[in-house]
Amino acid sequence: MIIERVTIVGTGLIGASVGLALKASGFSGKIYGYDSNTEESATALQIGAIDDSLASRAGVIASKADVTVLCTPVLPILDWMEYLAPALNEEQLVTDVGSTKREIAAKAVELFNQPGHARFLPGHPMAGKESGGASLAEAKMFQGATWLFTPVAAFGPLESEWRDLVKLFGAQVRNMDAERHDEVCAWVSHLPQMVSTALAALLQDTFADDPEGMAAVQAIGGRALRETTRLGASPYSMWRDVAMTNTEEIAKTIAALEQRLAHVRENLRTPELRDAFATANQFRKKETAESKIKESKEEKKKDA
Amino acid sequence: MIIERVTIVGTGLIGASVGLALKASGFSGKIYGYDSNTEESATALQIGAIDDSLASRAGVIASKADVTVLCTPVLPILDWMEYLAPALNEEQLVTDVGSTKREIAAKAVELFNQPGHARFLPGHPMAGKESGGASLAEAKMFQGATWLFTPVAAFGPLESEWRDLVKLFGAQVRNMDAERHDEVCAWVSHLPQMVSTALAALLQDTFADDPEGMAAVQAIGGRALRETTRLGASPYSMWRDVAMTNTEEIAKTIAALEQRLAHVRENLRTPELRDAFATANQFRKKETAESKIKESKEEKKKDA
Repeated sequence: MIIERVTIVGTGLIGASVGLALKASGFSGKIYGYDSNTEESATALQIGAIDDSLASRAGVIASKADVTVLCTPVLPILDWMEYLAPALNEEQLVTDVGSTKREIAAKAVELFNQPGHARFLPGHPMAGKESGGASLAEAKMFQGATWLFTPVAAFGPLESEWRDLVKLFGAQVRNMDAERHDEVCAWVSHLPQMVSTALAALLQDTFADDPEGMAAVQAIGGRALRETTRLGASPYSMWRDVAMTNTEEIAKTIAALEQRLAHVRENLRTPELRDAFATANQFRKKETAESKIKESKEEKKKDA
Repeated sequence: MIIERVTIVGTGLIGASVGLALKASGFSGKIYGYDSNTEESATALQIGAIDDSLASRAGVIASKADVTVLCTPVLPILDWMEYLAPALNEEQLVTDVGSTKREIAAKAVELFNQPGHARFLPGHPMAGKESGGASLAEAKMFQGATWLFTPVAAFGPLESEWRDLVKLFGAQVRNMDAERHDEVCAWVSHLPQMVSTALAALLQDTFADDPEGMAAVQAIGGRALRETTRLGASPYSMWRDVAMTNTEEIAKTIAALEQRLAHVRENLRTPELRDAFATANQFRKKETAESKIKESKEEKKKDA
C-alpha cells in the first residue's frame, strides 16, 4: 500500500462517509479531516470518520496526505484545486466527489498532472441523501452505487490504489468523459432535482394561504407526491454550484421538459396522451431490470 | 350486519384488493366479482379475492348485492352507474373507487339517492401501484392509506357499515367535497403522474438512438431518477379517464409547473434559485411529519 495518509476536505455527509467507508474497508492508515464549519469536523471526529481534525487550510497542506479527497460543493473544490496545486508534489494525488466534472477536469488539466505537480483524478460517487451533514454519514453510503471517474491523465499507482479502495466501499467504478458526464447527469440527476424543487415550491406557494387545502394535500398525498417532491428538501448550498457549473446543459433539459409538459397539457383529451404514456412505459421497462438490481442492493444495505 | 353480499365490478388490482381486504377483515358474507376481461376475474377467483365470478353484466344485477363496488377506470364507472341505476332498489348501495369524483358525484345526484332508487356513495382510496392486475392485489393494500368519500346524500345504515368495513381495511376515512377532491388530487396525484410520464417519455426519446447514452443513463441514474420516473410505468388505460374527467384542473396545474420550471431555468445563476430551494424546503418540512407516519405504516405493511 502506498496510501497511508488520507485527508478529507469537507467532512459533511459524503466526506464523513468516505472516512467511515475507508475504515470499514480495513484501511489502516491515518485519516485527517478539515471542514470550514468546525461543527462538521467535530462530528466527523466523534463518529470516527476521521482520526484527526485539521484546524486550518494550511493544515491540509501540512498533513502531507498521499490522497486528498475534496468533498465540498463544486465551487470550493475549484478553489481548493487552485490552493493545493502549487503546494503539493507529484507523489500526491488529489481527487474529488463533485457533482459536475467539466470545469473540474479542465482545471485538473491546467494545474495538475504535469511533471513536478501533484496528480488529480476527478471523481463523482452517485450517492447521497436529500439532507446533509456528518451526522447522517454511513460506511455503507457507496454500496451498490456507481462511482464515476473522468480521468484527464494516465493512471499511476496512486490512482489505481484509490480506485481499488473505492471498489472496497462496494461501489461500481466507471470511467466517463467529463463532457458526457455533465450531459448525462443533467438528465438523470440535475433535471429531477430542479423538477422536484419546482413542484415542491409551487405546492408551497399555491397552498400557503389555504391551510385547509394544505392539510388536504398532506392527508391525501401518497407515495407519488412524496417521491416526486422528496428532493425538494435538498440544500441550495450544494445545488447552486451544480447550477453554476452546468448551466447550459441543465437549461437545455428543463426547456425540453417544459415543451413536453405543454404537449401533454394540450393533449389531455387526444390520443397523443396515449403515445406519451406508451413512450414512458418503454423507458420504465428498460429501467426496471437495472433498478431492481440497484434497489435490492439498497435494501440489503438497509437491512445490514 | 346488513351487508351480506358484495359484488365487485372490475376485479383488477384495486377490485381484487378490496375482496382480499374484506376477507382479511373477517367479512363472512359472499363476494361476487365481474370483469370484462375474464382473465382478471379468473385470477381474482384463484387468489380468493372473490367467491364467485359473474359471467355477464346482467349477472351483476342478478347477484342482488347489498353493496356493489365499482372498481373500473372512471369512464366505465359512469357507464355502470347508468346501467345499474334503473335496476337496483333503495336497499342497495353502490360505491366506487374512481380517481376523479366531480362527474361521478354529479351522476350520483342525478340517478341515485332518490326515494325508490339505490343509494350511491362516491369513494376514492389513495392506494395503488404503478402496475395493475389482480395478480398484484394485496389484502394490505389500504393499510395506512386515506380513503376519501365525497358524499352526495345523508348516510343510511348501509353507508355507515361500508365505512366501518373500510376502516377495518386499515384505511383512514375522510370526507371531502367532490370539487375540492378533484382540485387537490390534480396537485397531489395527477400532476405528479403527468410529470413522471413526461420525464420518462422525454428520456426515452432523447436516448432512443443513442444506446451508449441510454446505457450511461441506466448505469448512473440513482434513486432520484427512479423515483421521479417510477409513475412513467402507469397504464394509459386508467389515466385516460382521469385526464378526460379532470381536464381543466390538470391543465391548470401543468401550466403552473411549466411557468415555475421556466423561472428556475432562467435563474440558474441568480439568487432567485435560492428562493425556489427555500420555498421547496418549507414544503418538505411540512410534508415530513406527515410522510414519516405514512412511511412507517407502509414499512410495517411490507414487513408483515
